[in-house]
Amino acid sequence: MTSKRENEFTSWYIDTIQKADLMDYTPVRGCIAFKPDGYEIWEHIQAEMDKRFKETGHRNAYFPMLIPENFFQKEKDHIEGFSPELPWVTEAAGEKLEERLALRPTSETMIGHLYSDWINSYRDLPVLINQWANVFRWEKRTLPFIRTSEFLWQEGHTAHVDEEEAREETMQMLGIYKEVVEDLLAIPVYDGEKTPSERFAGAVDTYSIEAMMQDGKAVQAGTSHYLGTKFAEAFDIKYLTRENKHEYVHTTSWGTSTRLIGSVIMVHGDEQGLVLPPRIAPTQVVLIPVGPWKKNPEIIEKLDAVFAELKAKGIRVRLDDSDQSPGFKFNEWELKGVPVRVELGPRDLAKDQALLKARDEDEKVEVNLNDLVARIEEELTTMQTRLFEKAKAFREKHSHTHVDTLEQLEQHIADSEKNDDIPGWVLAGWCGDDDCESHVQEETKFTTRNIPFNPPATKDTCINCGKDAKHTVWFGRAY
Amino acid sequence: MTSKRENEFTSWYIDTIQKADLMDYTPVRGCIAFKPDGYEIWEHIQAEMDKRFKETGHRNAYFPMLIPENFFQKEKDHIEGFSPELPWVTEAAGEKLEERLALRPTSETMIGHLYSDWINSYRDLPVLINQWANVFRWEKRTLPFIRTSEFLWQEGHTAHVDEEEAREETMQMLGIYKEVVEDLLAIPVYDGEKTPSERFAGAVDTYSIEAMMQDGKAVQAGTSHYLGTKFAEAFDIKYLTRENKHEYVHTTSWGTSTRLIGSVIMVHGDEQGLVLPPRIAPTQVVLIPVGPWKKNPEIIEKLDAVFAELKAKGIRVRLDDSDQSPGFKFNEWELKGVPVRVELGPRDLAKDQALLKARDEDEKVEVNLNDLVARIEEELTTMQTRLFEKAKAFREKHSHTHVDTLEQLEQHIADSEKNDDIPGWVLAGWCGDDDCESHVQEETKFTTRNIPFNPPATKDTCINCGKDAKHTVWFGRAY
Repeated sequence: MTSKRENEFTSWYIDTIQKADLMDYTPVRGCIAFKPDGYEIWEHIQAEMDKRFKETGHRNAYFPMLIPENFFQKEKDHIEGFSPELPWVTEAAGEKLEERLALRPTSETMIGHLYSDWINSYRDLPVLINQWANVFRWEKRTLPFIRTSEFLWQEGHTAHVDEEEAREETMQMLGIYKEVVEDLLAIPVYDGEKTPSERFAGAVDTYSIEAMMQDGKAVQAGTSHYLGTKFAEAFDIKYLTRENKHEYVHTTSWGTSTRLIGSVIMVHGDEQGLVLPPRIAPTQVVLIPVGPWKKNPEIIEKLDAVFAELKAKGIRVRLDDSDQSPGFKFNEWELKGVPVRVELGPRDLAKDQALLKARDEDEKVEVNLNDLVARIEEELTTMQTRLFEKAKAFREKHSHTHVDTLEQLEQHIADSEKNDDIPGWVLAGWCGDDDCESHVQEETKFTTRNIPFNPPATKDTCINCGKDAKHTVWFGRAY
Repeated sequence: MTSKRENEFTSWYIDTIQKADLMDYTPVRGCIAFKPDGYEIWEHIQAEMDKRFKETGHRNAYFPMLIPENFFQKEKDHIEGFSPELPWVTEAAGEKLEERLALRPTSETMIGHLYSDWINSYRDLPVLINQWANVFRWEKRTLPFIRTSEFLWQEGHTAHVDEEEAREETMQMLGIYKEVVEDLLAIPVYDGEKTPSERFAGAVDTYSIEAMMQDGKAVQAGTSHYLGTKFAEAFDIKYLTRENKHEYVHTTSWGTSTRLIGSVIMVHGDEQGLVLPPRIAPTQVVLIPVGPWKKNPEIIEKLDAVFAELKAKGIRVRLDDSDQSPGFKFNEWELKGVPVRVELGPRDLAKDQALLKARDEDEKVEVNLNDLVARIEEELTTMQTRLFEKAKAFREKHSHTHVDTLEQLEQHIADSEKNDDIPGWVLAGWCGDDDCESHVQEETKFTTRNIPFNPPATKDTCINCGKDAKHTVWFGRAY
């Protein structure tokens, strides 16, 4: 990674996603258009998530996008958290509305209102529902995919007989997020608990998976919340127990969004553009004829045959027989992050071989034509693993455990800058006091990412006040 | 069908979808919640449509939901058609917006704006994009699924080099709609062209598929529009031809929506509740133990085995071993429209058989246990066809070709009422004059459905004025 990249990571990011044709800006503030190559990444994420949700007994539903203002008043933490970011519908069909309607930032309130009707008895529980939807948060500073005024997401909303079952659900879904993000997107994440100040507005406990981008900043890649009985009390969601008593249900919610698209780019991309993990790449393999191939019809015949064979195996393959030069094509498909490129020219054909280039490797490999399809399949699998391992090595390198005090953190940041390196994240102790957390942030812009379930070390003293640490926490700058 | 059903079709419909647990009302006017059994019908429709769209070279994308007011001003027919129904966002994050933003009723304007940037050369064409999204039309009178303020749909938006290619696309997509609605939903439709007064706001030509409900009213089940260069001119979407000239693209748009869910209920339902075509039923088969089955563990063992075998074949099966009585269960699963019910009790088991009941047939059939799984599979296929044929026979019975004048139409309506029958649709000639069309509507509430591609007869004179008919048209009352 060049230092230019580190210093100008955001410009590199925007430049990369535009050249790769993933999105476009629109005249509506902070709202982007997801172009087909960008949207297809989301479709692959959706398909995998949806499969896992259904395997664990969840079903999809769809709730209204517009939420009456009075719904937000019912849970005070929730309104405090979300009201600064809400867009409002105030008129419709030529008339002023009696009550303003918010464009949903999340659906706990509407769903709470409905669940209070849908849930009456222990027989109705658990309710395990997910929704795929667009949501709105009118943010001051936006960045395509990572933080936009409108984005796409899924939000799970479940209701349970008791705390134990609800907490199990919360953890199960966090586990699914971790698996999908690591296996499908090849992004390693730390799973853990959020500190109180970073909790979802209205949650009892929030858990997250946190991913490190190549500029060392964190993206919260998914969250799962145990909401206790807070929304049940606000919306009166009670059920009749087997013992004929009325009890509040315990609810959870959990979500992942199109910011995962941005995370993939920021974790795997390089100077040549996108680098896409094979499992989510809209095009997995591109076949390119080279040399004087038009005079040699065998070239295209052979590539057509390989194309058909790959396609029959369900591999997303393109044959680029356009009039552009090979150099132009190589560059274009590299920009788009296509995992595997195959080149075939008369000289290769004479030697009964093709050249295979993995997007993330420097060298082209000669492959016998008889082995080509099998070799491509193999490369798609190994590249998926290789990208994960590379991202993990990068993260380990920039996950620091030697920082115990604020002074050391400041020194660490200063050293990083001096060495033209990124500061990454530091694992440090925390006494549990909000003031210590916010003081670290004021001085260094490092915020608590999460309290990891499996920290690589345990810290005894608070990074800020030096008192006994209650928790060992990842600190880092974040998107 | 009872006359009560006919007279109170709407109450029957609302009662049926609520008892079947497909939807719920919400406090936001005209906005419903799609419950899992309702939403899953949509998921099956989506999966089939999406497959066909992709097979024909289309890709999905996502465009912003909010549309700046000035976009609507650019195509005058479009704004006239949609402005009476728009909800507006006027404030966000505590501030009044400089320009109002509409919740999209459809996306031609936003997409036109973006395509003008995306399309530069003939090399960029055709653009074949579809979007799955929520849209808003603030309707005065709403009916769950059929007409709601917010609904879900897909909207295809394509751009082409010339009229011929765009018209081919328009027809291709109408053809796909017809196939999916007939094959998947078992609803026969008439395909044809809309009259000018019924065209999409801004279209050159609109084509539709029209379905007849059991009250004889029509649902427009899908539309496909040739937009000519109207939106290209409004949004300046030009391309450089091979001959280096700047030309406007020709665009199309086409859509189907969650009103298809409502149509399925209205076409196939009966006095016992929903009747779902097997291909879209959330539960296709329900297995119910009967008699003193708890004392006879073999019953559940056998049903478990059948369950596992069906599930392995990808059939959506449920085993209802709850404590309710068989009668209660039969009723509940009939309400939900489950296509096939299997009953197994000790007496059946002794005879090595089970009872199979198709939702749309009166009699239970005895099936040998060895044949049971094969017989269930077969029933799912034959029921799908049977429902289509039944709906088609119903439609033919109520598609009348004997009406040639307005007087005859009024007489036909009066006769139907007298006979406690529904008036259905009539095929009649039309001179092409808007006034004749609206006069028929004023007198009878019959509107033009479409000018069918394959009319069962050809009419020579206009139903209203008696002059030469330019078109043979389906007239009927419509949702």
